[in-house]
Amino acid sequence: MLSKLNPNVAAMKCLQCGQLYPLNDYFEGCPLCLQSGTPASVVPHFADFPTELHHGNFGEWMSYGCPSGLGEGNTPLSSLPRLAATLGIEALYAKNEFANPTGSHKDRMSAIVAQRALDIRAKTIAVASSGNAGVSMAAYAARAGIDCVVVTTPDMSQNWRRAIEMHGARIIAMESSDDRWVLIARHARRGDWYPATNYLMPPVGSNPFGVDGYRAIALELYLQFPAVPPTDILVPTARGDLLWGIAKGYQDLRNTGLISVTPRVHAVEPFPRIGRAREGHGMVCSNFSGDTAMVSIGGNTVTFQSLLALELTDASGVAVNDQEASHDRLLLAKEGLYVELSSAAAVSGLRKLVAQGKIGARSRVVMIATSHGYKEQSEPEFSGQLISTPLMHEG
Amino acid sequence: MLSKLNPNVAAMKCLQCGQLYPLNDYFEGCPLCLQSGTPASVVPHFADFPTELHHGNFGEWMSYGCPSGLGEGNTPLSSLPRLAATLGIEALYAKNEFANPTGSHKDRMSAIVAQRALDIRAKTIAVASSGNAGVSMAAYAARAGIDCVVVTTPDMSQNWRRAIEMHGARIIAMESSDDRWVLIARHARRGDWYPATNYLMPPVGSNPFGVDGYRAIALELYLQFPAVPPTDILVPTARGDLLWGIAKGYQDLRNTGLISVTPRVHAVEPFPRIGRAREGHGMVCSNFSGDTAMVSIGGNTVTFQSLLALELTDASGVAVNDQEASHDRLLLAKEGLYVELSSAAAVSGLRKLVAQGKIGARSRVVMIATSHGYKEQSEPEFSGQLISTPLMHEG
Repeated sequence: MLSKLNPNVAAMKCLQCGQLYPLNDYFEGCPLCLQSGTPASVVPHFADFPTELHHGNFGEWMSYGCPSGLGEGNTPLSSLPRLAATLGIEALYAKNEFANPTGSHKDRMSAIVAQRALDIRAKTIAVASSGNAGVSMAAYAARAGIDCVVVTTPDMSQNWRRAIEMHGARIIAMESSDDRWVLIARHARRGDWYPATNYLMPPVGSNPFGVDGYRAIALELYLQFPAVPPTDILVPTARGDLLWGIAKGYQDLRNTGLISVTPRVHAVEPFPRIGRAREGHGMVCSNFSGDTAMVSIGGNTVTFQSLLALELTDASGVAVNDQEASHDRLLLAKEGLYVELSSAAAVSGLRKLVAQGKIGARSRVVMIATSHGYKEQSEPEFSGQLISTPLMHEG
Repeated sequence: MLSKLNPNVAAMKCLQCGQLYPLNDYFEGCPLCLQSGTPASVVPHFADFPTELHHGNFGEWMSYGCPSGLGEGNTPLSSLPRLAATLGIEALYAKNEFANPTGSHKDRMSAIVAQRALDIRAKTIAVASSGNAGVSMAAYAARAGIDCVVVTTPDMSQNWRRAIEMHGARIIAMESSDDRWVLIARHARRGDWYPATNYLMPPVGSNPFGVDGYRAIALELYLQFPAVPPTDILVPTARGDLLWGIAKGYQDLRNTGLISVTPRVHAVEPFPRIGRAREGHGMVCSNFSGDTAMVSIGGNTVTFQSLLALELTDASGVAVNDQEASHDRLLLAKEGLYVELSSAAAVSGLRKLVAQGKIGARSRVVMIATSHGYKEQSEPEFSGQLISTPLMHEG
């Protein structure tokens, strides 16, 4: 079988030390940095990019440029003019990643991981997930005809679980989130599971080819804003795959001369993990439990790729709590968008950055609406049955 | 405020008797046909269409051509080659309507109903719905700044209910499905609710401007299959808004000379309602309760627009049961698509039409994937908690 890898991908490169490695899978990131106790991801390194970007040559910019046929990517924008006015900025758009086939941005990663797994004849793909990544990988593994194992914790929402089971994946619930890494590490090192996600502690980013798929969001935004590009992008963030992918996509666009100014790509998180890491407190934040209702961005770790994304784009990390995100989820719903709590956190983060003067009144902002709201378990206040209304009693 | 109605819409026209009426809202369809006891919808009647169709002039083909800004329409296709082979046809595609902002095709209708309601300064939009239409109308009404009432029955899934409440709509649960029509009729005739959906029994189609929005699916498919168009389209059907809209869109394309052959637009339903209506047993089928787990296409009524869509495109109505749809939902999930039960019915219907020789081996088929699977309540077999796995016991 002919590999579908873009022949322009010449090597893998460490994000931190810049070392180039032969083309291969480096689940644990750069071997040299790992040895030094400061793990960091590697990325596919392109010999060069085309000098233009349009729909016709989009694939030439990606490490695996062939679409899966399931319909991922090329997601629409929602304009949110009233919310922009409320927040005191010029314009606000949501990039509707929930429009992807399994309802989240993860499909961009999964489509490529499945393709890579086929290329190297992997038998089983493994993913550690609280929901979105598990559903997504299960769907794309099914499509590729590869077995899939979703390693999770017992509190996974039934809505996610049912979908994963329908896609034919095996679910393993570990007692703790950290146990998930141990299990995946064991099988990945034996070579019996092809990992889609990190399993190190402190962590690196997810599968390097998969993360590379998120660059497409920057490329799409470049095409979707032909006249006036956004100034700031708000990204709900756990280990920063999406954050880094978008920042890297813009970096590529700048390196090829297609843009001169990169939007700032901000991280929104449930705890000030990134702030503490930037102050030198390390990549595992024992100050925070990692538990939050924003399950898609929980955890208490930071990755090098997140810090680098913020540094390269001169951006901020901003922490918001569950209450703030709940409030802003309602605001978004009143504008017509029903998103998961982790997505709504982007609005809360935006509000804080405006209040801190880091995002100004002339800003044109894109928030990444990572997933719709239907996958999360209903909250207690919504769990009752509807009361039926007899017709005669109605005014 | 300037109306956003396409100036090419010259009148409203009865589907059944062809009578032209002044431009207005006719919720109860053609007044003459209603008087004769054979209700039928009216449709916006275009003076003419452009001689070409491309992304740049798409709006000129629609009665309300301005997008809402929320991102509806232009949904992607999923190719399903293995399933096509299993079913014995040349090609199968799913048109991913779940990629719309609220996760279903209903957004195409709601976007236009909200626009029309703004045009005529309506204060409150009302919708009768078991789920998708309610969520969708609630979202678009919120966006338009218009109140919304969703009239439903007490068994509406919590997942849908929570979204509707977040969008700020009022939910009224009536004891029976039929009671919903009575309530909406009362308020619509008083002029205090602008109805998005039918309230007659026997019924007509939904709001004529809203239904007109479904024509866009045919126009998109025309652009998405530039070389070899589909031969057959499978549409999960209750009262036939979607079915009729697609058939009408193709009719428009043929009338302007852009295509010479129209795909057959088949109706898939939970009971052989259409077959009985075609045999002259009337539009309300007392043989069937209307209750099915395929809640989006339940009910025991047929509309004139459904019969006309099948007649104009030389197509079939085909009934499938819940078990068949459940089986095919699993098959679709194994291909990477997790859809609601009513959407999966399209595969079951396709299988039957192939077995009956009505869809042949050279057919290229599109199924409309009306909504994703996350909105429906979890079934009993998925309701248990996951068992946690202690790490040491794992092989």
